[in-house]
Amino acid sequence: MTTQLTGHLLIGHQEVAGAAHAYRGFDPSTGRELEPTFSAATPEDVGRAAVLARDAFDAYRATSAGQRADFLESIAAGVESLGEPLIARAMAESGLPRARLEGERGRTAGQLRLFARMLRDGLWQQVTIDSAQPERQPVPRPDLRQRQIALGPVAVFGASNFPLAFSVAGGDTASALAAGCPVIVKAHPSHPGTSEMVARVIQQTVVEHGLPEGTFSMVGGPSNEVGALLVSHPAVQAVGFTGSRAGGLALCRLARERAQPIPVYAEMSSINPIFLLPAALSARAEAIAAGYVESLLLGVGQFCTNPGLVVGVAGPGWDRFVAAVSALLPQRAAGTMLNAGIHAAYGENIARLALASSVQVVATGKPANAPHAAVAWVHQATASDFMAQAALHDEVFGPSGLLVSCQDTAELRAVAERLEGQLTATLQMDDEDLAVARQLLPTLERKAGRILANSFPTGVEVSYAMVHGGPFPASSDSRSTSVGARAIERFLRPVCYQGLPAALLPESLHPRAAPGAWRLVDGAWRCGPA
Amino acid sequence: MTTQLTGHLLIGHQEVAGAAHAYRGFDPSTGRELEPTFSAATPEDVGRAAVLARDAFDAYRATSAGQRADFLESIAAGVESLGEPLIARAMAESGLPRARLEGERGRTAGQLRLFARMLRDGLWQQVTIDSAQPERQPVPRPDLRQRQIALGPVAVFGASNFPLAFSVAGGDTASALAAGCPVIVKAHPSHPGTSEMVARVIQQTVVEHGLPEGTFSMVGGPSNEVGALLVSHPAVQAVGFTGSRAGGLALCRLARERAQPIPVYAEMSSINPIFLLPAALSARAEAIAAGYVESLLLGVGQFCTNPGLVVGVAGPGWDRFVAAVSALLPQRAAGTMLNAGIHAAYGENIARLALASSVQVVATGKPANAPHAAVAWVHQATASDFMAQAALHDEVFGPSGLLVSCQDTAELRAVAERLEGQLTATLQMDDEDLAVARQLLPTLERKAGRILANSFPTGVEVSYAMVHGGPFPASSDSRSTSVGARAIERFLRPVCYQGLPAALLPESLHPRAAPGAWRLVDGAWRCGPA
Repeated sequence: MTTQLTGHLLIGHQEVAGAAHAYRGFDPSTGRELEPTFSAATPEDVGRAAVLARDAFDAYRATSAGQRADFLESIAAGVESLGEPLIARAMAESGLPRARLEGERGRTAGQLRLFARMLRDGLWQQVTIDSAQPERQPVPRPDLRQRQIALGPVAVFGASNFPLAFSVAGGDTASALAAGCPVIVKAHPSHPGTSEMVARVIQQTVVEHGLPEGTFSMVGGPSNEVGALLVSHPAVQAVGFTGSRAGGLALCRLARERAQPIPVYAEMSSINPIFLLPAALSARAEAIAAGYVESLLLGVGQFCTNPGLVVGVAGPGWDRFVAAVSALLPQRAAGTMLNAGIHAAYGENIARLALASSVQVVATGKPANAPHAAVAWVHQATASDFMAQAALHDEVFGPSGLLVSCQDTAELRAVAERLEGQLTATLQMDDEDLAVARQLLPTLERKAGRILANSFPTGVEVSYAMVHGGPFPASSDSRSTSVGARAIERFLRPVCYQGLPAALLPESLHPRAAPGAWRLVDGAWRCGPA
Repeated sequence: MTTQLTGHLLIGHQEVAGAAHAYRGFDPSTGRELEPTFSAATPEDVGRAAVLARDAFDAYRATSAGQRADFLESIAAGVESLGEPLIARAMAESGLPRARLEGERGRTAGQLRLFARMLRDGLWQQVTIDSAQPERQPVPRPDLRQRQIALGPVAVFGASNFPLAFSVAGGDTASALAAGCPVIVKAHPSHPGTSEMVARVIQQTVVEHGLPEGTFSMVGGPSNEVGALLVSHPAVQAVGFTGSRAGGLALCRLARERAQPIPVYAEMSSINPIFLLPAALSARAEAIAAGYVESLLLGVGQFCTNPGLVVGVAGPGWDRFVAAVSALLPQRAAGTMLNAGIHAAYGENIARLALASSVQVVATGKPANAPHAAVAWVHQATASDFMAQAALHDEVFGPSGLLVSCQDTAELRAVAERLEGQLTATLQMDDEDLAVARQLLPTLERKAGRILANSFPTGVEVSYAMVHGGPFPASSDSRSTSVGARAIERFLRPVCYQGLPAALLPESLHPRAAPGAWRLVDGAWRCGPA
């Protein structure tokens, strides 16, 4: 697999030198532009990728689940085989350290392999069979068989903060390809070289597996126009996005203004509250502070699950926690942020907090001594001030935390009730906190997609039970997750087949099912023939 | 259970004499208004119902699945126990015949009992468990448990054409209550007395089962304002609707203009094409025509699944089919439509078809000799005319059919490809048609939620595998069904619990699970403790 970059768009089997506004990658740690020049897609390029995807759709979704599993596993192996050049380019384009990117590469390959496993065991398709009841009175019951089919071509937006795991071959692409949807990636302009390397792997794997040409394309450009054209194109049937609230809402607006509205899965904005319950705080304030600072600074705070808010009851335990954070933070070096735009926005948000009269500085990290480096900031406020000021509820993307002290656990519950929708909510609790935790839990269930006890929200497991989503504005669709097995459901819809002759039935619904595939038969799950 | 009507709104445990614009039921078969006068909800009434629902939400969703199953079964028994007065009132308000309404009552009770069964067997909650792997390298895997929780209060719009099965205690209400969502019904002004009787059953059952007051309310009114207020209220978290395309789109617009957008499940518009494949047509044109005319006239054509379009290849078989329809239709009496508005709209649509130069009359039913009776009309057109005129693709609500003749099976496929999204698509086919059917199937899968062979689309089974939904505009959300077991999924969202102490876990996620409940444990379905 070549790692030589050309800066071309990859549309179907072809390389295309787009005509519009060329742009370059940028190394935030040096402030220098990187070679080569990348071409931006024209409206015609976007249209061609979309039409190719539409033309590929029936043939691609008609591949067997096993064929698609093989395809995903080859992509995983191909990404791994890119080796050092991929890691080196991703480090240069993101400012992220080697260990993090090597871990992210492993996660990316692991995601592709999880969906391959789901394809093989049939869980993804939720095959459901109601047997005919020819003797039923007053009318016979027909034979009814349901399966999930792919929605259609999916537009995937690469995210800046995970140049591998939420980008070209990330979770959105993996789950859409697994579902049987062709994918058109809008590359994130923050890591165009990383994107091209990974996209070439997918393009070449499409060819090697004899899949239809429009199964995969990647377009890009420095402006929002390419993405807008993609979401508005009639051939596109769903959108996957991870990014800012403004960006996600703009895509939702475009998607619903279409003649045929389509679903947008936008993972947008979350401050991931951590609730420090009294007994836990009393028993281990310093240990919690240490874990919190680690989580806050992980990836220079550039995680969707970054713990932007800590809530606890004022008192000696809380004071110890605040003191420990004050002691730890000044020892921590500033980290390079992903790009100049994110770095500038972080600075503006910190300046805004500095002007808020109800907020005090707890501590800051070491001063920045490199381009685009972000100093960590932790502020504090009272619960009543926090509840009174909507702006304090906004996500600050970066290593910024707010500590909110409450008068009692009733006020702590009131703070929880006042929050917007979140990806996660975390409890730090001991056995003596159970009663308080039980009172808080119903609120947290309404507010968040994932509830943790005694850990920290950064670090999202890729598995069957994971939920990475949550009520608005954490996600545009709280019924979905963008990480884990159920991510595939975003790109599927059910079809029921009534009384079809066996010769016409799709293979997975056939009376002689593939052994080892799960099916819900007359209300019970079975594995094997039915 | 009393069947005495008061015309009051039912808000929580109370009866309320709304202040706004009073209205009455109307008997379309006589053209006379019915007693009593019904009060219309004020904005304050709607607001109170919504706030009560929000206040009830946590307590209602915290009931056990068994408690909610008992609740649904009591509602089913209560609706049945209304006996003759319910049937008599529904007949008077809808013009529908006794046998149809008795059948619909059975279906309504059956739906409630299906969801009760799903609650008991745990299928509804899709409990998913990933066991902890404390030894995993480089980091341990935490214990992850996922369940589905209720979305929040749901606004349900009664549909005019199913005064029981898609109305106050219909599929939307049954699935939302099963999910753990409080329900606020907007009664359809076309059957206010039927609605009140059924709503009283639910209200009384809420009291008898000791459920929170806001678990159920019913508001109503003759204008669209009450429904608009409901969809826009911040407490409402999802909407179920069956009705016109214009009505559904208006609700979608209101829902997305909210500060927090919410899902709308609107089942809107479908012409349910039937494809007559050559061998079937040649073998049994007359039998197919007889079945088609029955399906077309069922319920005076007022079904979402009414077969508005028949497509076949011109030739002797097609001519025999058209001749048989021409012979059968004039023998069929006009039937009373549901209300004056639907009757008037039907007349306008038929007049519009009469003006279309590319359309010819095939046959009409017997002339109408009663108020609001609808004469059946069947028209025909060529495939090229049909494809050229978008207006011919619009649903005509009532006993109106269009027969479209194609030059060959390629043109028949082209017609299929040109269709909008549909609830159903039907094949009339024999063994020799398999090749044609196989070519057509991928298109039908993209266009419809249910595909039938050798039957007719009217008659929707309530079961696990049913899909009553489809691509836009058949439904506003093709990923959902409004009939059958999966209807409950519309009102649920996943929550993941990471590392929670067993004492804090919801019961269904507890290591000691209820015996007999289905769970997906480490990627395999199991029934019982895990």
